[in-house]
Amino acid sequence: MMIRFGVLGAGRIGKVHARIIAASGKAKVAYLADAMPKAAADLAAEVGATVASVEDIIKAKDVDAILIATPTGTHADLIEAASNAGKPALCEKPVSLSVERIVSCLKTVDKNKSVLMIGFNRRFDPNFAALEQRIRKGDIGEVELVTIISRDPAPPPADYVKGSGGLYRDMMIHDFDMARFLVGEEFVTVHALGASLVDKAIGAAGDVDTASVQMQTASGKIAVITNSRRATYGYDQRMEVHGSKGMLRAGNVHNTTVELANGHGFLGDPVLNFFTERYGQAYANEVNTFIAAIADGKSPRPNGFDGLQAQKLADAATESWQSGKVVKVQ
Amino acid sequence: MMIRFGVLGAGRIGKVHARIIAASGKAKVAYLADAMPKAAADLAAEVGATVASVEDIIKAKDVDAILIATPTGTHADLIEAASNAGKPALCEKPVSLSVERIVSCLKTVDKNKSVLMIGFNRRFDPNFAALEQRIRKGDIGEVELVTIISRDPAPPPADYVKGSGGLYRDMMIHDFDMARFLVGEEFVTVHALGASLVDKAIGAAGDVDTASVQMQTASGKIAVITNSRRATYGYDQRMEVHGSKGMLRAGNVHNTTVELANGHGFLGDPVLNFFTERYGQAYANEVNTFIAAIADGKSPRPNGFDGLQAQKLADAATESWQSGKVVKVQ
Amino acid sequence: MMIRFGVLGAGRIGKVHARIIAASGKAKVAYLADAMPKAAADLAAEVGATVASVEDIIKAKDVDAILIATPTGTHADLIEAASNAGKPALCEKPVSLSVERIVSCLKTVDKNKSVLMIGFNRRFDPNFAALEQRIRKGDIGEVELVTIISRDPAPPPADYVKGSGGLYRDMMIHDFDMARFLVGEEFVTVHALGASLVDKAIGAAGDVDTASVQMQTASGKIAVITNSRRATYGYDQRMEVHGSKGMLRAGNVHNTTVELANGHGFLGDPVLNFFTERYGQAYANEVNTFIAAIADGKSPRPNGFDGLQAQKLADAATESWQSGKVVKVQ
Amino acid sequence: MMIRFGVLGAGRIGKVHARIIAASGKAKVAYLADAMPKAAADLAAEVGATVASVEDIIKAKDVDAILIATPTGTHADLIEAASNAGKPALCEKPVSLSVERIVSCLKTVDKNKSVLMIGFNRRFDPNFAALEQRIRKGDIGEVELVTIISRDPAPPPADYVKGSGGLYRDMMIHDFDMARFLVGEEFVTVHALGASLVDKAIGAAGDVDTASVQMQTASGKIAVITNSRRATYGYDQRMEVHGSKGMLRAGNVHNTTVELANGHGFLGDPVLNFFTERYGQAYANEVNTFIAAIADGKSPRPNGFDGLQAQKLADAATESWQSGKVVKVQ
Repeated sequence: MMIRFGVLGAGRIGKVHARIIAASGKAKVAYLADAMPKAAADLAAEVGATVASVEDIIKAKDVDAILIATPTGTHADLIEAASNAGKPALCEKPVSLSVERIVSCLKTVDKNKSVLMIGFNRRFDPNFAALEQRIRKGDIGEVELVTIISRDPAPPPADYVKGSGGLYRDMMIHDFDMARFLVGEEFVTVHALGASLVDKAIGAAGDVDTASVQMQTASGKIAVITNSRRATYGYDQRMEVHGSKGMLRAGNVHNTTVELANGHGFLGDPVLNFFTERYGQAYANEVNTFIAAIADGKSPRPNGFDGLQAQKLADAATESWQSGKVVKVQ
Repeated sequence: MMIRFGVLGAGRIGKVHARIIAASGKAKVAYLADAMPKAAADLAAEVGATVASVEDIIKAKDVDAILIATPTGTHADLIEAASNAGKPALCEKPVSLSVERIVSCLKTVDKNKSVLMIGFNRRFDPNFAALEQRIRKGDIGEVELVTIISRDPAPPPADYVKGSGGLYRDMMIHDFDMARFLVGEEFVTVHALGASLVDKAIGAAGDVDTASVQMQTASGKIAVITNSRRATYGYDQRMEVHGSKGMLRAGNVHNTTVELANGHGFLGDPVLNFFTERYGQAYANEVNTFIAAIADGKSPRPNGFDGLQAQKLADAATESWQSGKVVKVQ
Repeated sequence: MMIRFGVLGAGRIGKVHARIIAASGKAKVAYLADAMPKAAADLAAEVGATVASVEDIIKAKDVDAILIATPTGTHADLIEAASNAGKPALCEKPVSLSVERIVSCLKTVDKNKSVLMIGFNRRFDPNFAALEQRIRKGDIGEVELVTIISRDPAPPPADYVKGSGGLYRDMMIHDFDMARFLVGEEFVTVHALGASLVDKAIGAAGDVDTASVQMQTASGKIAVITNSRRATYGYDQRMEVHGSKGMLRAGNVHNTTVELANGHGFLGDPVLNFFTERYGQAYANEVNTFIAAIADGKSPRPNGFDGLQAQKLADAATESWQSGKVVKVQ
Repeated sequence: MMIRFGVLGAGRIGKVHARIIAASGKAKVAYLADAMPKAAADLAAEVGATVASVEDIIKAKDVDAILIATPTGTHADLIEAASNAGKPALCEKPVSLSVERIVSCLKTVDKNKSVLMIGFNRRFDPNFAALEQRIRKGDIGEVELVTIISRDPAPPPADYVKGSGGLYRDMMIHDFDMARFLVGEEFVTVHALGASLVDKAIGAAGDVDTASVQMQTASGKIAVITNSRRATYGYDQRMEVHGSKGMLRAGNVHNTTVELANGHGFLGDPVLNFFTERYGQAYANEVNTFIAAIADGKSPRPNGFDGLQAQKLADAATESWQSGKVVKVQ
């Protein structure tokens, strides 16, 4: 039996998700909503769905699951609406830029005992997922030190950053989730540095474009994250975990394996340029994990709690950067 | 306007091709034939095609192009039938195990001025295609020396090799095509070595499982190819081209980028296991190249002549191995 | 004319230095002192030197330069003695574990206008030196973010750490110097994390064995350093500098280039095991830089000021770890 | 007790060897001869030796071993003289360009039961030596296929090649020795291709600058060697051995580990430029192996038989290239 999805949002990420559902062989996009009628109609035509309103989709009897890919400000309300309608939801990160709002939203989800999965897609990247499985399998013993490097190929417009919650909430939030995922414990101490070195307009807009955060768990484990809004060689996505028995790392994915050797040296390709290329397989695995979980009546991770914890770390980092002080997280 | 394909053959490769056509957005599988009714019906259901006989498909007015993925022995006849029906054809390699039959088949194609593309899929691998483009662009000056390494993960059953034409025609033929593609000249001298080191049953069946060939063009350029029917670390597919200004090479694709470091050293993943994984993108690019070419009224490469030349080299290598002598190719 | 050295200290590092001087072709070890008569005699015999007392060596008319490789507690006194005798000195790091004592020592050196070079050997590693030269040449534009990873193969005895000044002063001091060297600016903000995860006895002795520090310059540039007293795969020594035009990194040196591929994957060698192997060439280049500088009447870097600044950062990191707060450095 | 060497030849290779002996701690250069008095005097002064005539050195009572680094044409005579004087000899490759002369020379050595080691230095490269030891240890099971790539950074003057015996005897001889070393069996079938693609003057002088050879043992094992007199990216020295249980390979050594990433991609350093840099450690290990062997009264490899066999393969390759036919080797 095919799982029938209601997809909310037909923007860049909504399209990615809708196409994955349509190609999954186990689910289909039944209905689709977007504030832009043409965007909704075009995507609906492509994936064989019917355009409807958000409200109608959420209450529709022939919709089994909701995929939320609307603007951030609407996430918590739509999660609650889906939960109240008894429908499992896969929502793009973040639940909300407000930790308070996340907490109240999760109360509704808990009360309804409904399924909520949050779209931290990097957990589903085949490289990073394999790395995490090998940590859990014991390949490196006890985790001691995690290093995560994320660099975007180019900065967003300064206008964008104003509404983004800032780099720690908008960009580094993925790394906070990965750090928790890899370490398997909660971080209690957070210190952030930040600067506007790439684009002064980002600094003028009250944000940073170059940042580092170091965090520690109660048992002493350390994670170090560095971010830049610029990388001339592609979308730089690396992580390394050092443990008592060894080290595991996952490197970048290059455009091709071609290498040129001459008097300048040995030249390999730049890395894949941005997230739709780099994480195409991760998005597919994420959606298929959600489909499999609801088919089996299970609660997939990352869930609302994971969304909450990552947001708390992003808030703590933002506060640390603003105050210049170390911030404790409960 | 969608190009309507008639797909002949619903086996492993037929499926790969049919699915690519169905996902191309520019073409569809209109009809599908296979000697096994169930195989035909299942694939037809999957890609939305109608099952029909080979004869009906070739003469059908609502079929624009023929994809031939039937057993080798039928290729030449089907190419001729498609050509006589005025339909462009994409045929899996080889046209025939007999050079004489290829020549007669190509005469028909020439006479009809019909389009024929041969499925040497490796030319369309993103890595190898990029390598070739950079040779043509002049990145390494004049090509001097080509080294190709191909190793299958495991040997085929000895039964299979009996009807395969032998390793040089069955496996190394891809490398002969790549050598011609990379060098851009015809080889005139061929010498082959071979042995049965992996499975004695292969030797007993009159074939080899470990082989090398070195070839030279009239201008002196050299290509060296080594093959093995065994590789414990995956499907090994590498090539390297040395030229007057530098060297270009394309390496293997590993399962993931994860690396484990401990007292044993630094351990990376095995390489992708076999051709459907390793060349999935190559098959897609091949079919899409064919679709684009016939949409534009152009003749794509590799064509029948490329199929003929690769077969001549495979014959020469087989003869060289059998006779222990150097063989000249016209 | 050969430069005549007085070498103070015939321990592990004294031996390394004395042998480099003896092999330099431009200098020789004239005299040698050590508190252990046999150690002094053995090394003197090996390098063709005469054993003498520290005092006699420093005042000897036929000694042109002093190499100080005695225990840390004696460094400042010996630097002053050499300076007062008008002799250039190359002293192992650190000048002193007390910043106050370094300051008073450097006053003497300044007053005498004598040459003092501090043995931060990593600046002379061919890989790291090349990296720094390429930064200065402009290969990556403006430096924005430095990442340094240093991991010892195994922890020292807990007894050792008691007198060492702690990890930040004993081990990470090299990384503080490298961070300054690569960034080319002074750091003003320091935050440290630390834990005892490798050996609880180290924690009981009041020190850490796993640590991270992040620092920022007044202009916003960031450096992140992580240290561990354990690495199962060898002596891990890496650095990476991200700038406005690109990224430069220097990796580890492996035992050999041999790689084994099989069903487990592709296995490369561990990295060189510890500092005498890994930095053998760095020590040689360091000493030869000192010899060339004094032959030319120049003042080589790193000098006393570099020693002072690294010590200030080590003190700040230690204080930050102890207090849990961010520390400002003047 | 120090082994006292007589070194014959103070040219480039004589210097390399004399310095290694002088630094060995277990041997010294007692006497040194060269046709150029100044070359002999300079090197003698450097290593603390006495200049003498070849004849006097060979018969000197206070000489324990002879190192022969004179021009090729004198090797066989000097080996015989040393052997007749009862002295072990380490001779640079080749014994002679004439297989007949090698055979007669080895008869003398056999009759005298004297020690003769031939300077195939690559067996002592730490990378290649480790690779061979791991084959013998069984890491890859039975050897099936060896691939050796050797490329010089730049061609020699055409004048040089005239007296060199040609590429197969002058350059590829090292690879013939390595192929035997790695496979552990004798090759019985040889086929060579060659061309003059780098420098037409080399072709005009009757030699090739680009070449490949494939060879097979009686049991079917295959070795493929390619050579070029040109490599824009340094001295290219690689080998790979494929076996029943896996593959071992040894790569190049790069100038540094520094890598630059930017919009062009990831650029690593060229490889070490030529043999004195690339094989510095190999020469040292070779000489020290000889010293240890004669101290222990053992016969080191590679010996005269190894020199003979490599020369036979070089002759067979030359004949194959000239005749265009496959050549059998006894």
